[in-house]
Amino acid sequence: MNQHVPPVAARPKAKFRPPAIQKVRVAGFFGPRIDTIAATTAHTLLDRCIDAGMLDQVDPERPNPGLKIPYQAGNDTVTTQMFWDSDFGKSIETAAYALFRKPDPALEARIDAVIEAYGRLQDADGYLNSWYQRIEPGKRWTNLRDCHELYDAGHLIEGAVAYYQATGKRRFLDILARYADHIAAVFGPKEGQKRGYCGHPEIELALIKLGRATGVQRYLDLARFFVDERGATPHFFDLEAQARGSDPKDYHFGSHEYSQSHETVRRQRQVVGHAVRAAYLYSGMADVSTEFGDDSLRPALEALWAHLTEKNLYVTGGFGPSAHNEGLTFDYDLPNETAYAETCAAVALVFWANRMLGLGPDRRYGDVMERALYNGALVGLSLDGTRFFYDNPLESRGGHHRWTWHRCPCCPPNIARLVASVGTYAYGEAEDEIAVHLYCESVADLDAAGAKIRIRQETRYPFEGRVVLTVEPDREADWTLSLRLPGWSPQVAASVNGEPVDVAAHDRDGYLRLRRRWRAGDRVELDIAMPVERLHAHPRVGANQGRVALQRGPLVYCLEEADNGAFLNAVVLKAGSRFRCEAAEDLGGATVLVADAAREAASDAAPLYAPEAPARRDAPVRAVPYYAWDNRAEGEMLVWVRQEDAR
Amino acid sequence: MNQHVPPVAARPKAKFRPPAIQKVRVAGFFGPRIDTIAATTAHTLLDRCIDAGMLDQVDPERPNPGLKIPYQAGNDTVTTQMFWDSDFGKSIETAAYALFRKPDPALEARIDAVIEAYGRLQDADGYLNSWYQRIEPGKRWTNLRDCHELYDAGHLIEGAVAYYQATGKRRFLDILARYADHIAAVFGPKEGQKRGYCGHPEIELALIKLGRATGVQRYLDLARFFVDERGATPHFFDLEAQARGSDPKDYHFGSHEYSQSHETVRRQRQVVGHAVRAAYLYSGMADVSTEFGDDSLRPALEALWAHLTEKNLYVTGGFGPSAHNEGLTFDYDLPNETAYAETCAAVALVFWANRMLGLGPDRRYGDVMERALYNGALVGLSLDGTRFFYDNPLESRGGHHRWTWHRCPCCPPNIARLVASVGTYAYGEAEDEIAVHLYCESVADLDAAGAKIRIRQETRYPFEGRVVLTVEPDREADWTLSLRLPGWSPQVAASVNGEPVDVAAHDRDGYLRLRRRWRAGDRVELDIAMPVERLHAHPRVGANQGRVALQRGPLVYCLEEADNGAFLNAVVLKAGSRFRCEAAEDLGGATVLVADAAREAASDAAPLYAPEAPARRDAPVRAVPYYAWDNRAEGEMLVWVRQEDAR
Repeated sequence: MNQHVPPVAARPKAKFRPPAIQKVRVAGFFGPRIDTIAATTAHTLLDRCIDAGMLDQVDPERPNPGLKIPYQAGNDTVTTQMFWDSDFGKSIETAAYALFRKPDPALEARIDAVIEAYGRLQDADGYLNSWYQRIEPGKRWTNLRDCHELYDAGHLIEGAVAYYQATGKRRFLDILARYADHIAAVFGPKEGQKRGYCGHPEIELALIKLGRATGVQRYLDLARFFVDERGATPHFFDLEAQARGSDPKDYHFGSHEYSQSHETVRRQRQVVGHAVRAAYLYSGMADVSTEFGDDSLRPALEALWAHLTEKNLYVTGGFGPSAHNEGLTFDYDLPNETAYAETCAAVALVFWANRMLGLGPDRRYGDVMERALYNGALVGLSLDGTRFFYDNPLESRGGHHRWTWHRCPCCPPNIARLVASVGTYAYGEAEDEIAVHLYCESVADLDAAGAKIRIRQETRYPFEGRVVLTVEPDREADWTLSLRLPGWSPQVAASVNGEPVDVAAHDRDGYLRLRRRWRAGDRVELDIAMPVERLHAHPRVGANQGRVALQRGPLVYCLEEADNGAFLNAVVLKAGSRFRCEAAEDLGGATVLVADAAREAASDAAPLYAPEAPARRDAPVRAVPYYAWDNRAEGEMLVWVRQEDAR
Repeated sequence: MNQHVPPVAARPKAKFRPPAIQKVRVAGFFGPRIDTIAATTAHTLLDRCIDAGMLDQVDPERPNPGLKIPYQAGNDTVTTQMFWDSDFGKSIETAAYALFRKPDPALEARIDAVIEAYGRLQDADGYLNSWYQRIEPGKRWTNLRDCHELYDAGHLIEGAVAYYQATGKRRFLDILARYADHIAAVFGPKEGQKRGYCGHPEIELALIKLGRATGVQRYLDLARFFVDERGATPHFFDLEAQARGSDPKDYHFGSHEYSQSHETVRRQRQVVGHAVRAAYLYSGMADVSTEFGDDSLRPALEALWAHLTEKNLYVTGGFGPSAHNEGLTFDYDLPNETAYAETCAAVALVFWANRMLGLGPDRRYGDVMERALYNGALVGLSLDGTRFFYDNPLESRGGHHRWTWHRCPCCPPNIARLVASVGTYAYGEAEDEIAVHLYCESVADLDAAGAKIRIRQETRYPFEGRVVLTVEPDREADWTLSLRLPGWSPQVAASVNGEPVDVAAHDRDGYLRLRRRWRAGDRVELDIAMPVERLHAHPRVGANQGRVALQRGPLVYCLEEADNGAFLNAVVLKAGSRFRCEAAEDLGGATVLVADAAREAASDAAPLYAPEAPARRDAPVRAVPYYAWDNRAEGEMLVWVRQEDAR
């Protein structure tokens, strides 16, 4: 351990873990999405991974495809990639959740075949990485900075844990545990061990999952080592570059900010660099803080959280505006049309927020988790489950559409595994407390205060704000039920068994904390007011001034050309108009917003520039949830809509 | 000639040519700029060309630098380039105008040395291209599509004509005339000749200049051949690719639209492809139309002009929004922050507009020439004449600044040669007519109706609209003096020798046509009203809606952080506020605009998104001419400024 790491503090009183996948059955809004993933996406991902050549790279029984450089093979899609194990790992994880949702022997057999290929690939010492075993043998552990080696391991581990939880089969878990044991032997603070860590964080949170699933402390310790060691001096990536015969200064991204290793993690206060790396790292840090009761990580985590959410977060919950570094730039830099806002970054923010809830319910985290989930992440998956957004602008002039696949196919399995496992994000379990972070029609079988507790949620959320929770413990016990009071709602009414609850009196950190002796059949009712809000951006977000984003409940809305014609920037909302909510048949019954608005228009022959303001005429406007855009006719899209001056 | 070319029509009645450089002495607004170019920029360009290694490439007495690929030599600036002759050509042209402005034996000696190097380089057959003679010998005329070979020739020819006009020395003109003769032998419709043309138009307009300067018809004919042949089928670039053993489909830019050779020029109706190539081609087409009285080119030229100016022109007179093709995309695609709007494109638009005036005065062309000159082109040169913009966004968040040099140094000598020769753009001479296209303190010695006519302009234009023209012919004669009535002015008053003129009655195509027997001392006074205009964009230009661009006279204005603090999108103009004009000491006395405005502000701690609109407070706003931005403290810049709703 390096000099910056304090001794482990006393464990905090409440330590929340997300429930394992099999403990929550989701219906309502997410049910059909998960069914689509189980029926379609899980197969599609596997098909496309295999079509891309991943199994050829993994399976030693297949001819070695060798090194193929993108853009030099005459076809962008014909390539081999050092991060392919991660895509396979996430696809297996998605398939695992799909199998939990719905038995599918054919899918299970296909996954088992991939797992067997990994079994054949694994070295005698436990090492397992298809790139370094088959494409660049002899180079393992020589470039942690750039080459995703431990990142690959992390995603395979996550896949293995999920597959074990979903199917009960240990084969893949055993393979990855053996690999994790090998990594634990190679990396660590002892003489002869490497004091390295991955340029792309991921293994940290994966090892926490592995430790939780297996009960093996060694994996948690290794996660902590990677977190603690990051950014220590002399810098591992520089030493490693020198060992390769390279000049550390000859680094494409210039600064170790790109991989959040520019300083030790406890000193970090600003979100920098590659967005997905950042949120994966912070997820691992939060996990370590939770598992080890390590409060010394909290000041960094809270400062990073504030820096992201107060100065660098899109209203959709996406972040990382720049394509150049797939990440952060400078405060309030939130351009709309060129927003990168990678789907994976919003997914990763859900992960991070969820882990920030590990030390207890706090609306700051729950609200952002919800925002990222319903908007910046969910938009990444088409309604039919077959197409995927990689980058997510908040404005499109008609040329931005979902991919069938991508040369860097990280986002498709990432959004699929998130949605397919959304139930685990809805709850947190602690010793004598259950937190409800997300509202969602569902049945959860949870544990608290020594009781087995079924919680049944009935709700049309996110389209309606009424939520009825029925508590069915197997025995009476005293514990706290904590219900998030969404920050976007101006008013929440609550009752327990018909008795009104004084919400303000029981509000702590934005959660309604109901402590009592819970009995079978206890019924909690929430009425969360869900008006249409017009959000204004901080004046420093230049692109959004004079404009509003429409939000209702957790959903951010946008205009689409399909509903409003082209030239969406000619639409001007009226300050006083009322929005009507309608169920959209063409978008799976989603609530859409309709209002009177104005529209500027001019003929084809009108001058390009004129001293007169263009004429306006009344025209209705229809806004649809951002997650649902680009599922109908292709065309323009706009989140931040002009609004006439109320002054 | 190909099948689409009609026979030459009867010459039109009026045929306007720009006066040669030595005929117009410029003072006033442009005087100090030209002085700076003569004193500084002309030397700077030559220094930087030579520092970049251009003379090493040209001079056979120097060691051959060989092929150096950019980005592979460890230093972006260490490279050899196939378009270097063009940069030398434009730099020599600039130096020529500088020498005309102010004798400078040292500069002249340096240019003569470069010319002698070209003399040494020239092959016995007249061929002259430093790339193909020294870097890739044996490959001449094998890739006209991509390799700028004739483009290089064009710029050398322009340099030679200018140097001849400025110094009277024929050496460089003779070298280039010999090369032009060689080209005329290689290219043409006859058996054994190549029916090719350059991927980057330029030689067409250069050959017209050469023909005019030498009186040799062969050069005009060759220009016409290149214009007529362009885009004919079978496509020369495809045949040429096949001859190189390449697949014509394997073309980086996909379509021949990139080089405006997708169809024959007379069939073209839409401005497409690389912006500079487009305007250079259209310049050559207009020249050919003028010189040959070829009306068959006019429908294309007029349609192209309308398409550019009515749907694709920035308010600054820049065009070509996309960096990808350095050119056009789709109608009304005029993003501000990502605007490419290359300086060379605005310069080229001045060229094209000037040549559209070849068939007679027409405000449609004069107004756009003026807009491009004072804004999109002039911005390319710093006030001190040492730094250069390549691309010209209309909004910057602080990161956009002029270059000292550029790996592709086309813009620096292009804007310098334009400004240094601006007098030739101010007038047009025809048989019995003199047109004043640009107002500028100047003395011009022109020819019309057999008389030698001195026209003296006294004016503080572009900062004031009063212009006094004194006409001093060497003998009385009947001819027409045509004075542009700028389209941006709501009112122009005019008088001749104190007698008011009925402007409307004498307005033809936006020029005040004064036909009379002019006598020495005749005095024309113009009072061109010059209010501050707030221009609104066509509603289809999405980015500009709810915003106005400020314009006064020919100058487009912008806000800079230096005057208004950061976060310029928080500034909101008041619909009714009055702008005051002030002379800015910090910008060479330029007129700046000051008004009361409002500003949205919020603290660092304010939420990123909130249902409440940000508070506004009154704050003055100061707008400076766009051409003058980035000459003081670095910071943000904004052309399209928010304006409160007047409704």
